[in-house]
Amino acid sequence: MATNSLRIIPLGGLGEIGRNMMLIEYGDDIIVVDVGLMFPEEEMLGVDLVIPDFTYLREHRDRLRAVFLTHGHEDHVGALPYFFREFKAPVYSARLTDGLIRVKLNEHRLLQNAETHVVTPGEIITAGVFEVEFFTVAHSIPDACGLIIKTPLGQLVHTGDFKLDHTPVMDQHTDLIRLAQVGAEGCLLLMADSTYAEQEGYTPSEQLVGEALRTIFVNAQGRVIVATFASLISRVQLVIDAAVFTGRKVFVTGRSMIDNVAMARQLGYINAPDGVIVGVEEMRNLPPAKLAIVTTGSQGEPTSALTRMANGDHRHVTILKGDTIVLSSSPVPGNEQAVYRNVDNLFRLGADVLYNRVSNIHVRGHASREELKIIQGLVQPEYFMPIHGEYRHLVVHAKLAESVGVPKGNAFVLTDGDVLEIDEDSAWLGDRVPASYVYVDGLGIGDVDQHILRDRAHLSTDGVVVVMVQVDKQTGALERPAEILARGFVDVEEREDLVERTKQVVANSLKGGKHYAEFADINTRIRDAVSKFLYDETRRRPMVLTVTVEV
Amino acid sequence: MATNSLRIIPLGGLGEIGRNMMLIEYGDDIIVVDVGLMFPEEEMLGVDLVIPDFTYLREHRDRLRAVFLTHGHEDHVGALPYFFREFKAPVYSARLTDGLIRVKLNEHRLLQNAETHVVTPGEIITAGVFEVEFFTVAHSIPDACGLIIKTPLGQLVHTGDFKLDHTPVMDQHTDLIRLAQVGAEGCLLLMADSTYAEQEGYTPSEQLVGEALRTIFVNAQGRVIVATFASLISRVQLVIDAAVFTGRKVFVTGRSMIDNVAMARQLGYINAPDGVIVGVEEMRNLPPAKLAIVTTGSQGEPTSALTRMANGDHRHVTILKGDTIVLSSSPVPGNEQAVYRNVDNLFRLGADVLYNRVSNIHVRGHASREELKIIQGLVQPEYFMPIHGEYRHLVVHAKLAESVGVPKGNAFVLTDGDVLEIDEDSAWLGDRVPASYVYVDGLGIGDVDQHILRDRAHLSTDGVVVVMVQVDKQTGALERPAEILARGFVDVEEREDLVERTKQVVANSLKGGKHYAEFADINTRIRDAVSKFLYDETRRRPMVLTVTVEV
Repeated sequence: MATNSLRIIPLGGLGEIGRNMMLIEYGDDIIVVDVGLMFPEEEMLGVDLVIPDFTYLREHRDRLRAVFLTHGHEDHVGALPYFFREFKAPVYSARLTDGLIRVKLNEHRLLQNAETHVVTPGEIITAGVFEVEFFTVAHSIPDACGLIIKTPLGQLVHTGDFKLDHTPVMDQHTDLIRLAQVGAEGCLLLMADSTYAEQEGYTPSEQLVGEALRTIFVNAQGRVIVATFASLISRVQLVIDAAVFTGRKVFVTGRSMIDNVAMARQLGYINAPDGVIVGVEEMRNLPPAKLAIVTTGSQGEPTSALTRMANGDHRHVTILKGDTIVLSSSPVPGNEQAVYRNVDNLFRLGADVLYNRVSNIHVRGHASREELKIIQGLVQPEYFMPIHGEYRHLVVHAKLAESVGVPKGNAFVLTDGDVLEIDEDSAWLGDRVPASYVYVDGLGIGDVDQHILRDRAHLSTDGVVVVMVQVDKQTGALERPAEILARGFVDVEEREDLVERTKQVVANSLKGGKHYAEFADINTRIRDAVSKFLYDETRRRPMVLTVTVEV
Repeated sequence: MATNSLRIIPLGGLGEIGRNMMLIEYGDDIIVVDVGLMFPEEEMLGVDLVIPDFTYLREHRDRLRAVFLTHGHEDHVGALPYFFREFKAPVYSARLTDGLIRVKLNEHRLLQNAETHVVTPGEIITAGVFEVEFFTVAHSIPDACGLIIKTPLGQLVHTGDFKLDHTPVMDQHTDLIRLAQVGAEGCLLLMADSTYAEQEGYTPSEQLVGEALRTIFVNAQGRVIVATFASLISRVQLVIDAAVFTGRKVFVTGRSMIDNVAMARQLGYINAPDGVIVGVEEMRNLPPAKLAIVTTGSQGEPTSALTRMANGDHRHVTILKGDTIVLSSSPVPGNEQAVYRNVDNLFRLGADVLYNRVSNIHVRGHASREELKIIQGLVQPEYFMPIHGEYRHLVVHAKLAESVGVPKGNAFVLTDGDVLEIDEDSAWLGDRVPASYVYVDGLGIGDVDQHILRDRAHLSTDGVVVVMVQVDKQTGALERPAEILARGFVDVEEREDLVERTKQVVANSLKGGKHYAEFADINTRIRDAVSKFLYDETRRRPMVLTVTVEV
């Protein structure tokens, strides 16, 4: 179905946060922007990751020309190992992003499918009919970029994740001048980050955090322990700066933090004077006032270094009275309980804890409403499509765009699988393409479905009861009392009475002397009788499984 | 162990939110303040409610003199039916609180154990050595009170839940004059609400919400649907006021909202002109601009009226383009996903949705830091104990108290089960009393333990696999291939290969020709072999249950 319209196909990140992925199609050519993963929501029990649905691309794999990555966060690149298991394509990204994904693809032995290229902002990549140019944006990881995509119908702007930061720590501004040029030339479609479209005003500069950290470091009598995202390289730089300023050494802990700091120093993204970063032995010999620690665990991840410290089982760091702990982050929705449990436990150990509710020690990496208006003013697109956000973020972002000049009806709120079609005259929503949640659970990709999740939810609520019966092959009569196993339901040793009466219920359910040829019937009878009995007795509904043996 | 010290024994609400309960003991007398419940946290799978641990009171039931209730919220009175199943005592509370608990106790046929009394603020109740006086506070339910408790060692102030509100909608101020008198007379111990001890500044007045609602009602072209807490009577009054102001009628939906509005009108807590509140039939005939709806579901509760509307399955209300929906609440921590899912779905149905992130339509019922400082300044207690809050709230509240005059070392941060002992010379932490989580699950109270919750967590992650084998009684040899059942693990119909190979693994695990006298050994062998095999194949760890039958 090659057409002469331009087709914008979001497969992730629209109507939800994470697993950002978009296809842009014209005629026989498809380019991919980002291939991210999403962390499972509460009700996706036991699921490890959620990745985009590649069905449409699978059906049109001959059209795939190239993959473009805006930046190195997991929600934009994390599904690449699953993608390159099936597809082959050149991948374009800026230097740090390329470094991060090469490590990841190499681990999965998939580098040969990917053919990665480092792109310099301003450089133009041709992929089929498309010409793609990267431009710099400020975000919470170095080398973040947006894309200007020339198509036969006009040029598109895709902001990636961004904010405006006039004093960024890693020296990378959002390239407003280039965006103004695109606006002057004419922009067919703007696609812009909606993550903080609810937030009034401006997102503060990363520099602000630097000032707050310096004040904390100056005033702390003991150790300062800073937890943040391992990918937030600029924040680590600020901690090192504050440590140098106050004559402290820095100990780095947490697997991903250690790896990222090493990688960032090697590539020149972190600047630490010789001897500032110390190992375990040297750390042990330093007085508390001469030490700072950078750690993972700002989201309360159960096996992270900070959580181990909070639980008193970190190998090298024991929290002491006099420690100042800084959570330089805000909890990602869904992580609040885990984050605040750590805060509570750290307070219990006698530390002073500074966190987002009581201190100004984190700024976000996404643009707030006034910044979004500036982008609209510079780019002045004909059509607008909010990207990256829950559905409500997209709606308020679309309203914002209309309030500052996008013609009414030209702002399109899509969700994953919707297709925005644009031709020379107009734009409209075409037929949807598949965009289901694809769950990764252990080695299984896509084999966990709603049915399995429903069973897990049922099991999680009231547990499971297994009833095993032996019946006479001829008469269907019970050969001996049923055996009952229960897990997650009641303590069967304390409720022997309930077990005995359940056995009686099983026996009664099979009475009648009739021959039951059908095992299904026996099983259904037993299950119904036992379920009803247990509900009446306990007001709980365990999953009842029956096993029948003919003897 | 009757003593001459005063003992303050929190059994709930300290170090966590909810299930507020406190014992105050002197010599042979114990009084109880509040008997609340807590809603289960994420990892308390399948648990319905969490109530306080009554063990200590059970051991000293002869000392129980009376129960005092500060206000009618579930986290302060919800566990009364469990309490009065075991204990008998007079209960004192203000008029609305009394009305609410009488309904609840009557439903449980426990009124005869409770002997409830309506108290007027200023009145003094004698209970053993204690003299207890109620004083009014502003909070998000009418008739909320704090307590002034005269003891042989001096007087205590317990604020209950409160804020300062100089223009309250229900005309009830926090009685600062009475608190100033207590301060002048001398206060031994202040116990004050810590819920918003992190929040800088002042909590805005309820009146502000009235103004915001009126503006929304004036500007809305279609229906206005307001969701809020059923117990937030003042908010319902504001909706009725805004409706009357704009010539709208009000339809009330959601079971608890209908009940509470009826009760509040009957007791005179809601003032609605005749004919303003309408039934289903009248509602159907009104044009959208003449209608407002008040509903439950502001917390995303799955079976609430607003969630049904958002899912398109409410019996009487179908969301239309042009509807304005107001979530007059903020999500309680843990409810964010459910709340925002509703917001997203309502936007999808074409409604305009106003919620806390984008609009000023909710104020909290708890005092912020500047208000807490005022209370400290008026009461000037000798000792201070922060109450009601997670551990971090208590810690920051204690620091706040010390910063405004409580002597260093006189602010005590307790958690549930700790005992604050005070005598004429000093105060100290005594031996702890039992204060476990007591889980209510269906009809079971306290029979769900950590072991059962661990099993539920295991089941919820990777499901369950049941292996049933028949073995020869003499040789232990397998009589026929094992039977395998799985739920929540993989789709066994699609993975017949895996099932067949699992049967083979079971067979192999029993090979060796030896006689296995011990069933436990057979079961362990099978379980270990199957668990390892399934993990190697899938990287999942289902719970493996084995049933062995000797034939």
